[in-house]
Amino acid sequence: MPRTPIEYRDASPQVRAVFNDIKRTRQVEDVNNFWKYLAHDPALLARTWASVKEVMTPGALDALTKEMVYLAVSVTNGCGYCIASHTAGARKAGMTEAMFGELMGVVGMANETNRLANGYRVPIDSAFE
Amino acid sequence: MPRTPIEYRDASPQVRAVFNDIKRTRQVEDVNNFWKYLAHDPALLARTWASVKEVMTPGALDALTKEMVYLAVSVTNGCGYCIASHTAGARKAGMTEAMFGELMGVVGMANETNRLANGYRVPIDSAFE
Amino acid sequence: MPRTPIEYRDASPQVRAVFNDIKRTRQVEDVNNFWKYLAHDPALLARTWASVKEVMTPGALDALTKEMVYLAVSVTNGCGYCIASHTAGARKAGMTEAMFGELMGVVGMANETNRLANGYRVPIDSAFE
Amino acid sequence: MPRTPIEYRDASPQVRAVFNDIKRTRQVEDVNNFWKYLAHDPALLARTWASVKEVMTPGALDALTKEMVYLAVSVTNGCGYCIASHTAGARKAGMTEAMFGELMGVVGMANETNRLANGYRVPIDSAFE
Amino acid sequence: MPRTPIEYRDASPQVRAVFNDIKRTRQVEDVNNFWKYLAHDPALLARTWASVKEVMTPGALDALTKEMVYLAVSVTNGCGYCIASHTAGARKAGMTEAMFGELMGVVGMANETNRLANGYRVPIDSAFE
Amino acid sequence: MPRTPIEYRDASPQVRAVFNDIKRTRQVEDVNNFWKYLAHDPALLARTWASVKEVMTPGALDALTKEMVYLAVSVTNGCGYCIASHTAGARKAGMTEAMFGELMGVVGMANETNRLANGYRVPIDSAFE
Repeated sequence: MPRTPIEYRDASPQVRAVFNDIKRTRQVEDVNNFWKYLAHDPALLARTWASVKEVMTPGALDALTKEMVYLAVSVTNGCGYCIASHTAGARKAGMTEAMFGELMGVVGMANETNRLANGYRVPIDSAFE
Repeated sequence: MPRTPIEYRDASPQVRAVFNDIKRTRQVEDVNNFWKYLAHDPALLARTWASVKEVMTPGALDALTKEMVYLAVSVTNGCGYCIASHTAGARKAGMTEAMFGELMGVVGMANETNRLANGYRVPIDSAFE
Repeated sequence: MPRTPIEYRDASPQVRAVFNDIKRTRQVEDVNNFWKYLAHDPALLARTWASVKEVMTPGALDALTKEMVYLAVSVTNGCGYCIASHTAGARKAGMTEAMFGELMGVVGMANETNRLANGYRVPIDSAFE
Repeated sequence: MPRTPIEYRDASPQVRAVFNDIKRTRQVEDVNNFWKYLAHDPALLARTWASVKEVMTPGALDALTKEMVYLAVSVTNGCGYCIASHTAGARKAGMTEAMFGELMGVVGMANETNRLANGYRVPIDSAFE
Repeated sequence: MPRTPIEYRDASPQVRAVFNDIKRTRQVEDVNNFWKYLAHDPALLARTWASVKEVMTPGALDALTKEMVYLAVSVTNGCGYCIASHTAGARKAGMTEAMFGELMGVVGMANETNRLANGYRVPIDSAFE
Repeated sequence: MPRTPIEYRDASPQVRAVFNDIKRTRQVEDVNNFWKYLAHDPALLARTWASVKEVMTPGALDALTKEMVYLAVSVTNGCGYCIASHTAGARKAGMTEAMFGELMGVVGMANETNRLANGYRVPIDSAFE
C-alpha cells in the first residue's frame, strides 16, 4: 500500500511544529505534499526543513537566483515533482516567462557541452588548475 | 591513440574563423581546450559555438546568473572539465567565494530533495498542475 | 503503438519457462509487468532473470540489504517503476517504515555530498589511495 | 586559482569547533579533505556535518548498511572522491571484499534494470499502487 | 498555471516559419508537442530546431543509427517524453522490435558496467591513453 | 589500500577460464584492466562477461552500432574508463573520426532536448501513446 499525505489535523505535535514554521516562514495556508510525505519520518522532516530554510534564505544570492538554480538542478535530474513545485516557487520569486526560456537555454546547453567535454576527453586547461 | 588539441596555427580556415570569433567575443588571447578538441569536427565546433554564444549573451538573465546556472548543472552531472572552466567563468563574471558557497548549498539541497520526492513518490500538488 | 504485456497464456514455451522459474523462486502467483514486457525479447528476458536471480540470492549480504540497495539506486536514478516495485520488495523482505525513513536520509545526504565534493573539486586523501 | 584545504592551524574558531566534533565523533586524528574544503563556507560546513552526523548515527539501520548505501549512491553518480572515501568508511564499518563484490552486483543490476523499465515503458503494477 | 501548447493558428509569424520548416522537412501534418511548448520562447525554438535538423541529417551515420543513439541517451536519462517520441522516430526510420531488444540489451549493459568500473576504481589501460 | 589488478599468472583456475574465453573471443593477447579488477569477485566476473559476450555479439544490430551505443551511454554517464575503452572498441569496429563527431552531435543534442522536455513539462503526444 502506498503512503498517504499526513494532514495537519492528523499530525503529531512534533510534525505540527515544523508545519507551523513552514507556514509562518512562507506565509502560506498549508504546506505542500512534499512536507506531508516527509512527515512519515519526523526527524527527516525536521532536518530537511531546517536545511532548506537556511539554504534558501537570501544572502549573497537573492531568492530568485536560488529558486532558478534549484529548478535548473531539478530539470537536469528529471524530478517531476520538483520541477513543478520549483517552477511555482521561482515564479513567485519573480521569474518571468522570458527568464524561464533563457534558463532552459542555459540548462540545455550545459547538459549538451558536459557530454561533449566527456566524449572528447578534454583535459583541463592549466589556467583552470 | 588519443586526440590532441588543434592549435590555431594548425587549424583550417573554417576552424580559425570560429576561433577568431570566440577570441573577439570573449576578449581572450587563446581559446580553451574545449574548443581545440571540438575542432576535430568543424561543423560541431561551429554549431556549438553559435549556440553557446547566443545562449550566454545577457538578456532577461545577466551573465553572472547564467554562468552560475551553468556551473550548477555541471556540478550535478559531475563533469570535471566543465566544473573547472565554468568556475573560472563565473568568477570572471563576478561570483564571489560567498556566492559560490551559497550556490553549492542550493545545488546540494536540490540534489537531496529531488531524491526524497522520488523515494516518497510524492504526487504533484493540484496547485502546481 | 505501444507494447502490451505478454501474459502467460499467450507466451511461447521459452518465455513460459522463465515465468515459471520466477514464480517458483519468488513463490508468487504471477510475474510483475517488468517481466511481461521484457518477454518481447525472450533472450533479454532469460538473461536478465538469470542475472537478477543470481545477484539477489542471499550470500555475504542478506536479502533485505540487497533490496534496500536496489531501492537506493532506483531512487537516485528516478526510475518510477523500479521505486514502486522495489519498495514492495524491500517491505516483503522486512523493511519497516523507520528503516525506509533512514534509508531515504542516507540516499538524500549522499546525493547532496556527492555534489559538494564535485563542486569544491576535493582531491582524494592520500589515505584513500 | 583553485582552492586549497583549510588546515586546523589556519581555521577560524567556528571551523575548529566543527573539526573538533568530527574528530571526537569519528575518533580520528584529522578530518578528511572534504571537510577542509567545505571550511571555505563555515555555514555550509556546520550544516553539512550536523546532517551527516545525524543521518549516519546507527538507528533502525546499522552503521555498515548505511555506509554501503552511501557507497551505492556514490558509485551510481560516479563521484570519484565519494567512492574512495566511502569505500574506506564501509570497510572500517566491517565490509568485507565478498560483501563489496555482492554490493557492486546489486548496484550494477539496478542500474541496468532501471533502464530496461524506462525503455520498455513498463506501467506500474496495480499491486504496487 | 501550467503552460499550454501553442498551436499553429495561434502562433506568431516567427514561430510559424519554424513549424513550417519542421513539417516540410519531416513530411508531417503537424509538429509534436515538444515544439509547441518550446514555442513559448521563439529564440529557443528556432535555435533548437536548427541544431536538431543539422544533427539528425544523415551523414557519416545514417538516420536509423542516429535515432537509436538518441533513444539510448533518453532511456539512460529516463526522459519519458523523449523515450516515447524517439521510439516512434526510430521505428519510422526502420527499427524493428528485434533491433529494439538488442538496443535495450546494450543500453542496460553499458549502464551496469559503467558502475562496475566506477566502483572498482579501474584505472585506464595505457593502451587507451 | 586500493585494489590491484589480478594478472593471469596470479589468477585462480575459475578466473583463468574467463580470461581465456575473453582472449579467444576478442582475439587479444591480454584482457583489459576492467576484467582484472572484476576478478576480485569471480562470480561477478563470470556473470558480467557472459552477459557482455551475449549482448555484444552481432545480431539484429551490427558490432559497430553496438559499440557506438555503448559509447553514447558511457559519455552520458560520464564514466571515464568506459569512454576510453569503448572509444577504442568502436574504432576497432570501424568508427571513423567523422562518425565519432556525428555521434557526439547526437549525444549532446539528446542530452539537451531531454532537459527541455523535462523543463517545459511536455505531455506525451497521443500519437505516441
